Amino acid sequence: MKFGFGIDVGGTTVKLGLFTQAGELLEKWEIPTNTEHEGEAILPDIARAVADCMSRRGLSREDCLGLGIGVPGPVSDSGIVNKCANLGWGVFDLHKTLGDLTGLPVKGGNDANVAALGECWKGGGQGHSSMVLATLGTGIGGGIVIDGKILFGAHGAAGEIGHVTMDKHETEPCGCGKFGCAEEYGSASGLTRLARRAMAKSALPSPLRALEKPTAKDVFDLAAQGDALALEVREEYFDVLGQFLAGVCCVVDPEIVVLGGGVSKAGPVLAQGVQRHFVPYMFHTGRGIRFALATLGNDAGIYGSFKLALDQFGG
Amino acid sequence: MKFGFGIDVGGTTVKLGLFTQAGELLEKWEIPTNTEHEGEAILPDIARAVADCMSRRGLSREDCLGLGIGVPGPVSDSGIVNKCANLGWGVFDLHKTLGDLTGLPVKGGNDANVAALGECWKGGGQGHSSMVLATLGTGIGGGIVIDGKILFGAHGAAGEIGHVTMDKHETEPCGCGKFGCAEEYGSASGLTRLARRAMAKSALPSPLRALEKPTAKDVFDLAAQGDALALEVREEYFDVLGQFLAGVCCVVDPEIVVLGGGVSKAGPVLAQGVQRHFVPYMFHTGRGIRFALATLGNDAGIYGSFKLALDQFGG
Repeated sequence: MKFGFGIDVGGTTVKLGLFTQAGELLEKWEIPTNTEHEGEAILPDIARAVADCMSRRGLSREDCLGLGIGVPGPVSDSGIVNKCANLGWGVFDLHKTLGDLTGLPVKGGNDANVAALGECWKGGGQGHSSMVLATLGTGIGGGIVIDGKILFGAHGAAGEIGHVTMDKHETEPCGCGKFGCAEEYGSASGLTRLARRAMAKSALPSPLRALEKPTAKDVFDLAAQGDALALEVREEYFDVLGQFLAGVCCVVDPEIVVLGGGVSKAGPVLAQGVQRHFVPYMFHTGRGIRFALATLGNDAGIYGSFKLALDQFGG
Repeated sequence: MKFGFGIDVGGTTVKLGLFTQAGELLEKWEIPTNTEHEGEAILPDIARAVADCMSRRGLSREDCLGLGIGVPGPVSDSGIVNKCANLGWGVFDLHKTLGDLTGLPVKGGNDANVAALGECWKGGGQGHSSMVLATLGTGIGGGIVIDGKILFGAHGAAGEIGHVTMDKHETEPCGCGKFGCAEEYGSASGLTRLARRAMAKSALPSPLRALEKPTAKDVFDLAAQGDALALEVREEYFDVLGQFLAGVCCVVDPEIVVLGGGVSKAGPVLAQGVQRHFVPYMFHTGRGIRFALATLGNDAGIYGSFKLALDQFGG
């Protein structure tokens, strides 16, 4: 029986998981992400945490099939990181650098893509071999799995679905500098924007108006209570996501779409609402594409990154 | 040296090519497509044409690695055709049916996807391993190549990029029954629609107004002569395609986009114009994605379908 590590690097913490080759998560823990000095300590800190765990468990290098790692930026299939602004990282060879530090085979990927692989393997997409993950948080992250494998893309940026332009006439810029990106409407903060605009346009009274900055949760809660304006905003939000995800599915034609991120806490009403609006926007061959919620939460990254290593080095 | 066939089934003719395993096209010819009685004669006619060629050249089954075939409808990776309206075909196993008729291993694909593989192998995308092909004809066909292989999709419909919804407020229906599909603006007939709308909206005089139904060629020809209205329409057309293809590229992140179909006869001005509009719509990681014109014309399908067979059966 061999073992392996799944590692998910975030802007404030690094999550680590020790897995058996059979896919069982034996242990998970976190260390802080030290972004000082262009993040130069991050990989050495990870290598130390891995070495500590191996020593504590009496594992040799030969006992370990390898290490998978997800990072918040584009990573090519061959392991070249092309800048991670959150970490201070520039361009470098992640496989070689972390491989030299740990003495283990390393396979890296973009964090959103790696989370998609995790959800497809053990989460909301389990049992499917092709999947689109849309992570609806502050922005929209995404990852695409085809034949059970991450679609990396030529520049490590496949699945950057949040930056598909939906409204070229938009006047408020997206965080990426473009205008009218899907994440300006379909993320949690996008839902806030839709609520703000609906309040300005409509005369409907609503408890939403008493809130200084209504959150995604406020809109879903009030809609569940039957508030007309919140229902209108929620419906528009479903419509935005339905149109957006139909576009993505026309391109890659997956078996299932999995919705994750903070907004997915709204529950089945989200998946059902988005699917209802998706169908009329979708080309006929894909109208049966299923919708599900992500189930692994913050563990999707360690599951997915371990799976990356397992597929690459598991024999 | 082994040989193989590449076959491209269209609504009026079937194109056939005999290739060497090294990828040299030795001979190409056409037979009519007999769509009577739900297209029941099409595959037997193809089998006869293949057998005639083998007999004429003294080739045994052992001399042939197999046969690739592109058909105008969705085909799954395992060879299940899911209706080809143009041919009258329903749902059936193409690999088994044509395999039984010819005695050769068969690998099938959707015609647009197969053309993409051909263009990636020997055409406008040569030297690249990932590519998006957009075929700008009466509609917009598409095909996606990843790591040198066709992206089939779970329902055989990956690359149906023409049916991404661009304007949900559109009132004229697309041929598919939806409203506001990319092909309503980005195809040859879409360009005609843009011209019609521009003439209605603008007061600019233009020779375009004297034409009963200006074609894509009329718009490009008049724009090349400096006609202001035609230039405006052409610019809007480039913008539609730039936005549309940036969306596709945010999803799959290819190395290159290849433009084919009737509109691509406009030449380099098309690829350059679309790329110019693509860049501001594209996420920063993909702004260097190249644009090129398709070069194989009507032979893309036979090249691509032979390549399908070569990859599957060529050892």
